Amino acid sequence: MIIKGDIIYTTEKGSFKQIPSGYIGTADGRVTFAGAEIPEAFRNESVTDYSGRLVMPGFCDLHTHAPQYENIGRGMDLTLLPWLETLTFPTESRYGERDYAEKRYRRAVADVIRQGTTRAVFFATTHLNSTQMLIDMMEEAGLCGLAGKVNMDQNCPGYLVEDTDVSLAETRAFAEKNKDNVHVKPIVSPRFAPSCTPRLLKGLGELAAEYDLPIQSHINENMDEINWVAELFPEAQNYADVYRQNGLLNSQTLMAHCIHMKPEETRMFVENGVMAVHCPHSNANIASGMMPVKAMMAAGMRVGLGTDFSGGNAVSILKTMVLALQVSKLRYQMHPEEGFLKLSEAFFLGTKGGGSFFGKVGSFEEGYAFDALVVDDSALNREGGNDLEDRLSRFIYAGDDRNIVQRYIDGKPVAVPDWD
Amino acid sequence: MIIKGDIIYTTEKGSFKQIPSGYIGTADGRVTFAGAEIPEAFRNESVTDYSGRLVMPGFCDLHTHAPQYENIGRGMDLTLLPWLETLTFPTESRYGERDYAEKRYRRAVADVIRQGTTRAVFFATTHLNSTQMLIDMMEEAGLCGLAGKVNMDQNCPGYLVEDTDVSLAETRAFAEKNKDNVHVKPIVSPRFAPSCTPRLLKGLGELAAEYDLPIQSHINENMDEINWVAELFPEAQNYADVYRQNGLLNSQTLMAHCIHMKPEETRMFVENGVMAVHCPHSNANIASGMMPVKAMMAAGMRVGLGTDFSGGNAVSILKTMVLALQVSKLRYQMHPEEGFLKLSEAFFLGTKGGGSFFGKVGSFEEGYAFDALVVDDSALNREGGNDLEDRLSRFIYAGDDRNIVQRYIDGKPVAVPDWD
Repeated sequence: MIIKGDIIYTTEKGSFKQIPSGYIGTADGRVTFAGAEIPEAFRNESVTDYSGRLVMPGFCDLHTHAPQYENIGRGMDLTLLPWLETLTFPTESRYGERDYAEKRYRRAVADVIRQGTTRAVFFATTHLNSTQMLIDMMEEAGLCGLAGKVNMDQNCPGYLVEDTDVSLAETRAFAEKNKDNVHVKPIVSPRFAPSCTPRLLKGLGELAAEYDLPIQSHINENMDEINWVAELFPEAQNYADVYRQNGLLNSQTLMAHCIHMKPEETRMFVENGVMAVHCPHSNANIASGMMPVKAMMAAGMRVGLGTDFSGGNAVSILKTMVLALQVSKLRYQMHPEEGFLKLSEAFFLGTKGGGSFFGKVGSFEEGYAFDALVVDDSALNREGGNDLEDRLSRFIYAGDDRNIVQRYIDGKPVAVPDWD
Repeated sequence: MIIKGDIIYTTEKGSFKQIPSGYIGTADGRVTFAGAEIPEAFRNESVTDYSGRLVMPGFCDLHTHAPQYENIGRGMDLTLLPWLETLTFPTESRYGERDYAEKRYRRAVADVIRQGTTRAVFFATTHLNSTQMLIDMMEEAGLCGLAGKVNMDQNCPGYLVEDTDVSLAETRAFAEKNKDNVHVKPIVSPRFAPSCTPRLLKGLGELAAEYDLPIQSHINENMDEINWVAELFPEAQNYADVYRQNGLLNSQTLMAHCIHMKPEETRMFVENGVMAVHCPHSNANIASGMMPVKAMMAAGMRVGLGTDFSGGNAVSILKTMVLALQVSKLRYQMHPEEGFLKLSEAFFLGTKGGGSFFGKVGSFEEGYAFDALVVDDSALNREGGNDLEDRLSRFIYAGDDRNIVQRYIDGKPVAVPDWD
């Protein structure tokens, strides 16, 4: 398959690669070439012509909560802990009901695809059955990524708390059932340290190692949470150390938020190859703070983006890029030494940067999975001009799902599911 | 005329007024009643039925630049002064050309209406003819508000700089021509202190007094700008004093940004009844800083919202409310004593708070101009529930122009112009 269009992507965080009226070839879902001409060997293949339209990598959303989709835009006058108690936990408790969960997960998955996300990493709930349903639904829709059954065996409402052994056994069953999946894999998902006993954390670390599974959790989001963790885990050196001690901090780990990191925690993340997930919408909405994204990138930390609904109010990584840019410029006022994010860096975080968590994802370099969006930006670019960075900038800052006219995931065209 | 719907508005900044399945009556463009029942005296009038839809006041955008509409989403890696030099001034220079200006102003006015703004305050350019065209176009479309011919006679490119006497004479002609306008009035618009000589500022202050005109400008946006003003106007006590000394600081004055205010400037604004315009998108995008909006409100300052495109990337006051909320929550980390904005406060700023600049605008209290939006939020509220604040919250955080199904301005239904 060969696609023609105005191609733009990032191979490194500081710059764009632009190929106006260029071509991308794919085979078996992987990019075979991207360039101004079709190489000799491929000249007999048919071309899908998107001339005049932007072709860019699809977006990677590395942290969000599928069951909270229904709460987007609600309860935004609250901060983290009361927001969990009054809104999030009661909602998640409903996801043991099959019909309730199915209807809402379908809406979430469809909208995630609509907004241009081609790889998503979801927290589900503690419920094994509906979490499996979410995985099956992503597979059915053609959305690649990861989904995790949540674990929590303390410090949460009685209607959600798990027995430690049951939590571990169900997670093992979940891993076993999905271990050979190709497009949507399981991820070990302790909610966050306060809601897990040391025994549960240790068991999950062992399970992740046994099945070679990725891991996700939350860290350093809110000062109250951080102080609470220090009380709950007095023998850990710091919050990150709680995860490290239990085998949950490695190069297959996603850690959301990372706002209030101690220098030794940053070092621990860099040394272990952990990927921090920057979630600027929820960090702002529930008054958590400004992640020092530039400082972390400078320290060598791997960073991706997350919408984190419904703490976040956006389903779109476009809007997440914009707020990441905006917050870094506000933080710059207090920390000019850090500098601020440039457009190309924010785009990198939402594509190749975050995509590296999945392997060769988020770029059009040879061998990368062909995840792509075709964007009709004619309504945004009525002044004309064919500088692709300028056109991409308008799309990021002023466009939305209406501009996305085609989506490819893992080499295949994917339609927005018409499930509702 | 009587309208039925799920009515929500604010009469004061801390709370909502909700009337589920309520009625609003209007006569001569003004609200005659809003309540759960139709008063006896009006029972014979016909009812326009928007049952199940939200009915709320239209939005007031108190600061934006019509000619920069075409630049939305461009040049966002720059800060204020280089952004003006490389992008803004070259664009504005084109607005002396009638056809160029007409086409682009039509797009801007149409989109402002599309996004739910019912009162807008525009900076145009230095060009008298196209500024008049903008006023006429707003009138034609049914958009109420103010538009100003920009004044600048120093420190700007030679292709835009005005002769002081010509600038004053043209502003007088503009005031004279539009002095009896009802819906779209002229506003005196010195760009900002650095681009105006003391003689120009003084002349504009006198003109505003003579014609009883409102005034708009920019202040305390960026530290480089502030230091520059201190050098240019050594005899002023501070930046605000430059405007005050020249008769440009009174209860008909809008001052955009107000980020880095000295305490004596805040006091001067409060004493003179000046309205500060909070423009969170541009304040973030061009790295200007976080306006202390809660502290200003606590000090008794009048505050409204502005999209400020194209420093801002949004045309929508909905998106402006969201970022105002988000930024105030980030600022709260550093300044917990200030507190953070609540939803009802942000909504107040975008409706009745900012609307007070026009008189009785932005509420459904008796005697207020009937500026309203009818919102079909069924796609945002699939969980049901009829708490109107909860529904409004979802619309603000997750909705967009697609949800707005009808607009009223000054009592009349207004369609989005189909000009393009």
